[in-house]
Amino acid sequence: MEKYRFLLSGSGGQGVITMAILLAEAAVLHEGLIAVQSQSYGPEARGGATRSDVIISDSEILFPKVLQPNYLVAMTNEAAGKYMPLIRPGGMCIYDTDLVQPSRRIDAMLMGMPMQKAVLEKFHKTQALNICVLGALVTLTGAVKMESVEQVLKARFKPAFHEANSAALALGAELAKPFLSAN
Amino acid sequence: MEKYRFLLSGSGGQGVITMAILLAEAAVLHEGLIAVQSQSYGPEARGGATRSDVIISDSEILFPKVLQPNYLVAMTNEAAGKYMPLIRPGGMCIYDTDLVQPSRRIDAMLMGMPMQKAVLEKFHKTQALNICVLGALVTLTGAVKMESVEQVLKARFKPAFHEANSAALALGAELAKPFLSAN
Repeated sequence: MEKYRFLLSGSGGQGVITMAILLAEAAVLHEGLIAVQSQSYGPEARGGATRSDVIISDSEILFPKVLQPNYLVAMTNEAAGKYMPLIRPGGMCIYDTDLVQPSRRIDAMLMGMPMQKAVLEKFHKTQALNICVLGALVTLTGAVKMESVEQVLKARFKPAFHEANSAALALGAELAKPFLSAN
Repeated sequence: MEKYRFLLSGSGGQGVITMAILLAEAAVLHEGLIAVQSQSYGPEARGGATRSDVIISDSEILFPKVLQPNYLVAMTNEAAGKYMPLIRPGGMCIYDTDLVQPSRRIDAMLMGMPMQKAVLEKFHKTQALNICVLGALVTLTGAVKMESVEQVLKARFKPAFHEANSAALALGAELAKPFLSAN
């Protein structure tokens, strides 16, 4: 299996780290894979930017940091500007069309979706945005099965959140569907 | 500055990953340091074991994984058995005296405290155990200032939790004090 190298980026309140942990746990706990998940905090963290890396593989992962992601998630313009140039040629960039205006020409599949807007419409708050992004990410990459993510969400969060989490995950999958049929 | 290499370990529900993220954020957001925080999940994660690494430094961190920790936190016997042999000679092992019986002879300072018991007595639940451990860890290592941790706790958690978090942090510091005066 080819290694999946994710770089998930956004701003502090968007739940990027939680998204990364959920993705790694789904791969490890329910699919028998190996995963490494890390945060590198530099001076830029003080600006409110968050970056979280996840590598998923079926064999040992020697270097846990993502230098060139196959899959970038960018949830702010700042994050997109900074990390899009790192994408491996032919990789994928998942971003929010209302939060990010991708300006660089890069050799990557650009998959923009109005995720924040859809989450706001459905839940009247953005708390579940990261779960929605995870739904889109899993749908577009096939890195793990959707039901593995469902199981992790059920184990990690209180029952009161299960329904909203499932709905947010499904919303992300729904937003991602048009890209699948286009391929 | 010498690099601080932490390996924090325990079981799934003990909040080990949150403790690691709080420690890294305190260093970066409030002390101008650089930190890397990572989880490596292997097949052992399916047994419920959790391991989270944090490196704190004032200069760039090239390899983000902790191979030999200076500071080990072990919150289960399984974790202690597995990770105590990795401690750098002269390093420190912080563990819960009711949860862990350290059996190996190692060249490390053993700092056992009844943290879970103290948290249970004070809060009648173990939810804040990881914050208590963090209080002990920060007191014993001096890696970051206690007020930096306080600030991160205030930024990350809802106001309803602030008082309990501060109390749990202070409890850990209190439990750690006897070791300080002994040196």
